[in-house]
Amino acid sequence: MESMQHDMTTGGNRRPLILITNDDGIDAPGIHELVACVASMGDVVAVAPDGACSGQSSAISVNKVLTVTEHADYMGAKMYSVSGTPVDCVKLAMHALLDRKPDLILSGINHGSNSGNNVIYSGTMGAVLEGCMVGVPSIGYSYHSHNQQCDLKACRPIVDMITRRVLESGLPSDICLNVNIPKGESCKGIKVTRAARGYWTEEYADYADPHGRPFYWLTGSFHNEEPDNPETDLYWTDRGYASVVPVRPDQSAVDSIGDIKSILD
Amino acid sequence: MESMQHDMTTGGNRRPLILITNDDGIDAPGIHELVACVASMGDVVAVAPDGACSGQSSAISVNKVLTVTEHADYMGAKMYSVSGTPVDCVKLAMHALLDRKPDLILSGINHGSNSGNNVIYSGTMGAVLEGCMVGVPSIGYSYHSHNQQCDLKACRPIVDMITRRVLESGLPSDICLNVNIPKGESCKGIKVTRAARGYWTEEYADYADPHGRPFYWLTGSFHNEEPDNPETDLYWTDRGYASVVPVRPDQSAVDSIGDIKSILD
Repeated sequence: MESMQHDMTTGGNRRPLILITNDDGIDAPGIHELVACVASMGDVVAVAPDGACSGQSSAISVNKVLTVTEHADYMGAKMYSVSGTPVDCVKLAMHALLDRKPDLILSGINHGSNSGNNVIYSGTMGAVLEGCMVGVPSIGYSYHSHNQQCDLKACRPIVDMITRRVLESGLPSDICLNVNIPKGESCKGIKVTRAARGYWTEEYADYADPHGRPFYWLTGSFHNEEPDNPETDLYWTDRGYASVVPVRPDQSAVDSIGDIKSILD
Repeated sequence: MESMQHDMTTGGNRRPLILITNDDGIDAPGIHELVACVASMGDVVAVAPDGACSGQSSAISVNKVLTVTEHADYMGAKMYSVSGTPVDCVKLAMHALLDRKPDLILSGINHGSNSGNNVIYSGTMGAVLEGCMVGVPSIGYSYHSHNQQCDLKACRPIVDMITRRVLESGLPSDICLNVNIPKGESCKGIKVTRAARGYWTEEYADYADPHGRPFYWLTGSFHNEEPDNPETDLYWTDRGYASVVPVRPDQSAVDSIGDIKSILD
């Protein structure tokens, strides 16, 4: 406890503290690849869910206890799992596991896309939004393959470049980054852009249980409403570039206050 | 099935179809009060989680089956529960339970505040954001008392007025509303505003299990960073007004693309 107090109050020449989390869980190849990418850049601590948490968005555990399990170090990084969501991991890491405020929070590398406006469901980005809200520069990395056995090394140059630049320069205080890396051996470069608009179609597979009662399983495919718009993330990832979308946690639409006043007046 | 096809393709003089959900579950007093408020305005169908889902944000169930249970009608409204999150309820209602696209989606009345930037964790607002993303005018209602036995009738004039206006005029296509109603017998009026910035302090209660191992329970209090700013929702709810915040699901910070380009170049 004394060393924690000491660490919390001194600055100086320490290496940056990098907190890593994800939504695929502590055993996912993606989080190990992310640790490997940044292990040389600072002191790395990984705190991730104890199981898969895809689609958890910014969910928090409000009515259950959270426990922490320590795992074997990986490439010099401390590794912990938490019995909760990605946001729980960020909150609990800062409450109980880190000896000082992190300089950077990274989430991923997610197995699968977090592009377009369906990013709203993403647990990967839920953790990143949380990091941003507590004032830490935060980045989510996603690779466009759901195959947990795929080779993630193609992500390395992108993760390396963006992480180093953000460590050096920081980010605007209310902005975090959503980075998507297309499938393939290498990507052509990066494009800073916005999320494409789209929607899901055929969202459920329908079944009947042995008693004839219906049940449902989420499925469906994302329909991109603007596939030819070079202002959007999916336009570029479809063409072999990594996309970087600046994201703001506050969803207040200040520019619509006047319109809403005139509807309600 | 034939009547569904018929209903899906004809317009005409039908009463508006209003879908109601919440995050406190199908048995919460708040959803019954909301049904009562709007029962005269259209055909009402309530589809809510089968248990409490506070803090579920925009979470979706990706790796479990969903089942639906029909409950007794309430004030002429069909009532269903779903074994999932608030967003699951909206998606599954539109897939399997409604005979046509709803004219309005309402969520609430939530037992407790969804003000300030902690609205990001709200399951109430997760459902509203989902409604907006599928192109339906959507409103979340929250009452500033966690007491499930409190008298919610103070909400009626606010819910009545805002719901009627939005039924008449619609909402901008990418905007939904977050309405918060202060505790008390009546409120002084409404203010269209933005979410206050703040953060949580002392977020966990710490415990030790019988074997000495730590565990944690989420708690803490919200610290409003701008309590004296009349541009914010909490300023007005603290002073007895209902707040209406226009909310945009797309979190892309288009105005920051230039800043991020200069950091990454």
